[in-house]
Amino acid sequence: MEKKIAILGSTGSIGRQTLEVVEALGKGYRVVALTANNNDSLLAEQIRRFKPDLAVLTGAEAAARLVHNVAGTGCAVQQGKEGQLQAATWPTADLVVLAQVGFSGFAPLVAALKEGKRVALANKESLVIGGSILKGMGLLDREKILPVDSEHSAIWQCLGNAGPEEVARVYLTASGGPFFGWNKESLHAVTPAQALKHPNWQMGNKITIDSATMMNKGLEVIEAKWLFNLDLEQIDVIIHRQSIIHSMVEYIDGSIIAQLGEPDMRLPIQQALTHPVRVKSPVKNLNPFDKRLDFYPPDRDNFPCLDLAYRAAYLDGTMPAVLNGANEVAVEEFIGNRIGFTAIPEVIRAVMDRHTIIDNPGIDDVVDADQWSRRKAVEIIDAQTGRMS
Amino acid sequence: MEKKIAILGSTGSIGRQTLEVVEALGKGYRVVALTANNNDSLLAEQIRRFKPDLAVLTGAEAAARLVHNVAGTGCAVQQGKEGQLQAATWPTADLVVLAQVGFSGFAPLVAALKEGKRVALANKESLVIGGSILKGMGLLDREKILPVDSEHSAIWQCLGNAGPEEVARVYLTASGGPFFGWNKESLHAVTPAQALKHPNWQMGNKITIDSATMMNKGLEVIEAKWLFNLDLEQIDVIIHRQSIIHSMVEYIDGSIIAQLGEPDMRLPIQQALTHPVRVKSPVKNLNPFDKRLDFYPPDRDNFPCLDLAYRAAYLDGTMPAVLNGANEVAVEEFIGNRIGFTAIPEVIRAVMDRHTIIDNPGIDDVVDADQWSRRKAVEIIDAQTGRMS
Repeated sequence: MEKKIAILGSTGSIGRQTLEVVEALGKGYRVVALTANNNDSLLAEQIRRFKPDLAVLTGAEAAARLVHNVAGTGCAVQQGKEGQLQAATWPTADLVVLAQVGFSGFAPLVAALKEGKRVALANKESLVIGGSILKGMGLLDREKILPVDSEHSAIWQCLGNAGPEEVARVYLTASGGPFFGWNKESLHAVTPAQALKHPNWQMGNKITIDSATMMNKGLEVIEAKWLFNLDLEQIDVIIHRQSIIHSMVEYIDGSIIAQLGEPDMRLPIQQALTHPVRVKSPVKNLNPFDKRLDFYPPDRDNFPCLDLAYRAAYLDGTMPAVLNGANEVAVEEFIGNRIGFTAIPEVIRAVMDRHTIIDNPGIDDVVDADQWSRRKAVEIIDAQTGRMS
Repeated sequence: MEKKIAILGSTGSIGRQTLEVVEALGKGYRVVALTANNNDSLLAEQIRRFKPDLAVLTGAEAAARLVHNVAGTGCAVQQGKEGQLQAATWPTADLVVLAQVGFSGFAPLVAALKEGKRVALANKESLVIGGSILKGMGLLDREKILPVDSEHSAIWQCLGNAGPEEVARVYLTASGGPFFGWNKESLHAVTPAQALKHPNWQMGNKITIDSATMMNKGLEVIEAKWLFNLDLEQIDVIIHRQSIIHSMVEYIDGSIIAQLGEPDMRLPIQQALTHPVRVKSPVKNLNPFDKRLDFYPPDRDNFPCLDLAYRAAYLDGTMPAVLNGANEVAVEEFIGNRIGFTAIPEVIRAVMDRHTIIDNPGIDDVVDADQWSRRKAVEIIDAQTGRMS
């Protein structure tokens, strides 16, 4: 039987790679809905190629252009948040790939899960910020939320059908980023250009900086907690420079299962698409001969973002939203050369210290916390840099 | 519900470790039958501790002593091959652990499988020599034969529920033994004392020498072929000096799943006992931090036993029996200092070259081939060493 797929965020990096994988899979997979923010020209191309039943753009003007552009293709065009929800719950879709960036992915995720859809989740924020809410709603189900990133997909592959009671801990592997082994002084002088060069993965700017500060791994710790129903004590981070092992699961019997592969996002994407079976993929096979794999503990002193994330996850409630919001502002200010590299965790810590947590938050609470956190971060940076806000 | 276990070969190394694991597992596991060759004193101890319903000794005198020794314990004592078969098919047993050494394990294996028992298989010869026969009888079933050695248990753990059509290949890891990297000249001068020191595993003499010649890995290739229904082209050997990764499975999508752990036989034993779930074990957890893992291709020129095993597996029929028989003789003669280390593969090759294969053999055919092979090996060694046979 054909597997029908809706892709939310189809013009972004993960969305485009998802379409590549669908195309390579060929028969048996059909795209039924696509959504994007404003990139109507690329979306139009995708519509002509993949012939979905529904296409959605967030922006009204872009949507109007798209209607004109794809007239006669038989594809319905919708607009705005309502359209996103329609795509997330599209009746014929078996699988919703949530590839859009930001907490705006949360509402479509909830809608899709409530409709009983399986979701391939590439959207970090919906778990980092909204994990607590999803848990409260009873929507965290390992068979329904399939992770689309290399580390969580690795854990998911290593878990198989094992229950959480069989798991001793998971090891999230981290490349350590470009500054692994650097001391405080050298880190102080890091420039945005240096931080934007990742040794192993080609990614967007924000996530590349997060990788350099290790906040990326911290956010993944929070995601792993919700995805796999783990205590924080069961989640360890291990530096593995070669990015060949993508993560590991240690079982209570002392056995460790690890997943290895080329660093290629199409692998976790295809995993989620073809689950529960594996089929041929365009991904290059890993040649393990002549390889060398190293492991080190992370440097928690010089990369404090990791512990800030653990702390936010431990405190829970609205704190992960505050962590995430303050981090986004700090990273932007660092890329804009307005604060230094080591100021990123300082700003986040200062914002977290000022936050009054709301336990068992609702959606409005986390949205408020996120906005408060961003304002507070800007305020703190302004005060430090003498900038007028 | 209680899992009831029969252990064939309970006084050997694997048998004793199996009882250790059963004891550590505690409630939920009960030993119902034990067998041994002639070690009646250890078997008597085991009977008092584990209270099986049946105990079997191969030797008549030892059995007579045992009857006397365990009178009043309620344990029935049987003798000889018939007794072994009785233990292998003991009505209440759910799982038969086949830990005895040599091809004498084949008949009990067949008997147990025919009765629908699940077998935890530590006996190499029954697969190496008898794999072809088992396949012909339709008795090779991944859910019925659970491997008890570190490499095949690793593969089995990495396979989960995947079908053979999802598997691209398996990598059997090999430590490379004490002589990895040595050249022909140095190998020529190897003494039995040197060969009997294995860097990572504590094992018996025969298997330690097999590990040094890489014949052990060759035999494991043949086992893997039958256990997992693989073509020889799907089985690769990879040198991994640290013996931390115990084997890997490469899937057709490009993903590799590996199993890691301390080198401790109690782990694969417990795996087979508790399957399909995992429970706490006495095995030390592996600490991956500060570890380094290396991989190299095997040196097929200087360790020709590996290719001899591939060749025997490829030719099939009675040839694997010939490989195994000639190897046993050659290893014994090497330990006895009558032939050199590099003569081991030479003897095996010479015997294989002289063998006329019988395809689709019966049990008598492989038993004959085994005996012919041993005679031929002795003959060849006698001729070379000028010894009178």
